[in-house]
Amino acid sequence: MRRMEEKILKEGQVLPGGILKVGSFLNQQIDTEFLMEMAEEINWLFGDGGVSKILTIESSGIPLAVAAGIIMKVPVVFAKKHKTSNVDGETYKSKVHSFTHNEDYEIIVARDYIREDDRILLIDDFLANGNALRGLIELIEQARATLVGCAVAIEKCFQDGGDRLRAQGVRIEALAAIESMTDTEIVFR
Amino acid sequence: MRRMEEKILKEGQVLPGGILKVGSFLNQQIDTEFLMEMAEEINWLFGDGGVSKILTIESSGIPLAVAAGIIMKVPVVFAKKHKTSNVDGETYKSKVHSFTHNEDYEIIVARDYIREDDRILLIDDFLANGNALRGLIELIEQARATLVGCAVAIEKCFQDGGDRLRAQGVRIEALAAIESMTDTEIVFR
Repeated sequence: MRRMEEKILKEGQVLPGGILKVGSFLNQQIDTEFLMEMAEEINWLFGDGGVSKILTIESSGIPLAVAAGIIMKVPVVFAKKHKTSNVDGETYKSKVHSFTHNEDYEIIVARDYIREDDRILLIDDFLANGNALRGLIELIEQARATLVGCAVAIEKCFQDGGDRLRAQGVRIEALAAIESMTDTEIVFR
Repeated sequence: MRRMEEKILKEGQVLPGGILKVGSFLNQQIDTEFLMEMAEEINWLFGDGGVSKILTIESSGIPLAVAAGIIMKVPVVFAKKHKTSNVDGETYKSKVHSFTHNEDYEIIVARDYIREDDRILLIDDFLANGNALRGLIELIEQARATLVGCAVAIEKCFQDGGDRLRAQGVRIEALAAIESMTDTEIVFR
């Protein structure tokens, strides 16, 4: 998606540790007009897949998942990172290692919200090591639902998460795929 | 908003400790069609207020804030609950006590995302003690921006957060206002 690449080149900042900061439009401040363009692209990619539900993970995946849910007219579910008193009863859960924060956490979704007959599209802002997506895929497997595919705003191709998931037969679509990045240059695949 | 009250009566569950669970449509699974109806209502209430930006807090405020941002054609900013490596540089911060989790946490937003000339609409899913909104208002005051008002999906009027904020001159609009609730009955104001 050319507009996504332009936006990253214009507003993105590469921080130490291989972190791409896109807080100005994607994951702290959200450019809602551009968000809808991203959602339209996801609908173009997955709109014919019979998606019944979108699953994401709090917090930074939520805006894009909600926008795509609005366009695709399906509900959105977000997995929570900690068990809270608002999620009672039975849950699906899996463990995720965060690259950004260098820590493990548990992700949880109430069983009521993923059903066996659901066809799930996963959405997240970033795909790097693929840990968050793998955790979400585990939740889908626990529910015996069907995974249609994964849409991410930005894939860091220099980390192997995307390629490992594709090797397992998972359909992954990135709106922008970064081949390499340094302080001074971002190269797209 | 009558549809909101109907939805709460049909799908809401009252849990011990005065917690209303609306995870089936508002804050874990999101009914995107209904979300847009809520956002239209917020636009009807605040659309003539010259709002330049919507501010919310992760995670459960994000869906409604994003939907309202799409309808009102303004950016959405969400305050984060912990300092992460993606928020560098200068930040505004304040402390919030969580009623649901019974703990204090810090909320943070990068200075770049709230400017002195911004006219801010606050959005959250619940208003109970008002702690989250007061924390967000502090961030707006630190930035010397203008608070237009606060829109919340559900106000628990039997807690005093809303009334205390109104007494300070803050405009608060709730899409549903709950006067009292028990295991068997929910009464709207």
